Amino acid sequence: MQKIHPEHPRYQSLILREKMAQAYKQGILADTALIAHGRGEAFDYIIGEKTTLPANKAIQTAAASLILAKNPVISVNGNTAVLASKEVVDLARILKVKIEINLYYRTPQRVVKVEHLLKVAGVQEILGSDEEDYLPINGLEGPRSRTSPEGVHKADVILVPLEDGDRVEALKANGKKIITIDLNPLSRTSKNATISIVDNVVRALPLLKQDIVKLKECQSHQLKNIIKEFDNHKNLQESLRIVQQGYVKDVEL
Amino acid sequence: MQKIHPEHPRYQSLILREKMAQAYKQGILADTALIAHGRGEAFDYIIGEKTTLPANKAIQTAAASLILAKNPVISVNGNTAVLASKEVVDLARILKVKIEINLYYRTPQRVVKVEHLLKVAGVQEILGSDEEDYLPINGLEGPRSRTSPEGVHKADVILVPLEDGDRVEALKANGKKIITIDLNPLSRTSKNATISIVDNVVRALPLLKQDIVKLKECQSHQLKNIIKEFDNHKNLQESLRIVQQGYVKDVEL
Repeated sequence: MQKIHPEHPRYQSLILREKMAQAYKQGILADTALIAHGRGEAFDYIIGEKTTLPANKAIQTAAASLILAKNPVISVNGNTAVLASKEVVDLARILKVKIEINLYYRTPQRVVKVEHLLKVAGVQEILGSDEEDYLPINGLEGPRSRTSPEGVHKADVILVPLEDGDRVEALKANGKKIITIDLNPLSRTSKNATISIVDNVVRALPLLKQDIVKLKECQSHQLKNIIKEFDNHKNLQESLRIVQQGYVKDVEL
Repeated sequence: MQKIHPEHPRYQSLILREKMAQAYKQGILADTALIAHGRGEAFDYIIGEKTTLPANKAIQTAAASLILAKNPVISVNGNTAVLASKEVVDLARILKVKIEINLYYRTPQRVVKVEHLLKVAGVQEILGSDEEDYLPINGLEGPRSRTSPEGVHKADVILVPLEDGDRVEALKANGKKIITIDLNPLSRTSKNATISIVDNVVRALPLLKQDIVKLKECQSHQLKNIIKEFDNHKNLQESLRIVQQGYVKDVEL
């Protein structure tokens, strides 16, 4: 691995890439996590590695939805923990919600490693790390179906960045509201989530925190209005248009 | 890793992903190879995992250019060897050209592993695997600057799939004609190559072989005409438009 110079135009992206490669070597990530990260990189590159207007709208709506939720939870997988543990922990602290570890390719070893990352970032209590204490979610099988009785299983609103499409579908079928962060506006995750934030987790999570701080002062009918005015389907189409436009704008051929 | 069912709509892509993950574990690939593969996956997904018309045009021109070349060579890196050793070997046999191993993150161990992959696929003679016998290419430093005196260093036309942008620029600055295969029409590699095939290597290489078989019967003025009529810049713009259209077409939001 080369040293990355801070003047490099894509410095941030290269730093994240390096983090992911290191984490993979440490056994924190599953085999295809790096490939998934590469797909995200491609989409981020296309939108200019900036948070777009529709992403901002989705973030604001997500903030309102998380504040209004009765049992919100943040579900964290390997990629999210590697890329944005600090951001997740900051957000959980502001929201006073719990963090649950949910790994698609779950092994006890990997759970321990992800748990360690979150603890280093300052989490006090982590759900989903107990191998015995879980309830399966309907419609999924195997280790990926596990949910904590105190977290995802009883949650009404789940913030679950970088989630797999199957799991999003199953969680929605179980009546959960799903807020996801995914750079591909056409992924099954983006298509099926209740609120789809098409952005890089590293940028979206601090913005979400900011919006929560702001909107906490609002009355619940104001928050409900924000949610009512938001149309995830239309917003995804706008994200998609920006992918196309970003692409056009960036052409220096 | 799960079993992949042949009925899965993205079976081919998942098989390649699995190949890459396995190869990484075996130490064949550098840290960021999987991430690069993920970026490719995203672009391939967008174009519908099919060879486009501009890609076909570039492939035909590449065939003509390789047939007319005085000293053509195929430069192979880790990703290409993992994804398409057999296809590379078939092509080299038809063209009667040599294959050279050029690794960006070159280590002797990795060279041996890539060499093994190519030998298993049937290559007789491989250039670039001798740690002593090399000439550096102007404008690059370190192990990545190595070229075989009998291969890339004296070549006039180099087919180099999935190449790094720095290396393409340096090779071009040294007067080489570069044919590349890269799914991102906006990559520095695509922008700087002489002929840029915006396609998946696994699809493009067999098509290139087919075109070489066909065009071998042509006279050299006919081949020169094919090359003359090809405008890489315009063709890349067409590839780009297809990325955008492919994106639009695929929307089921």
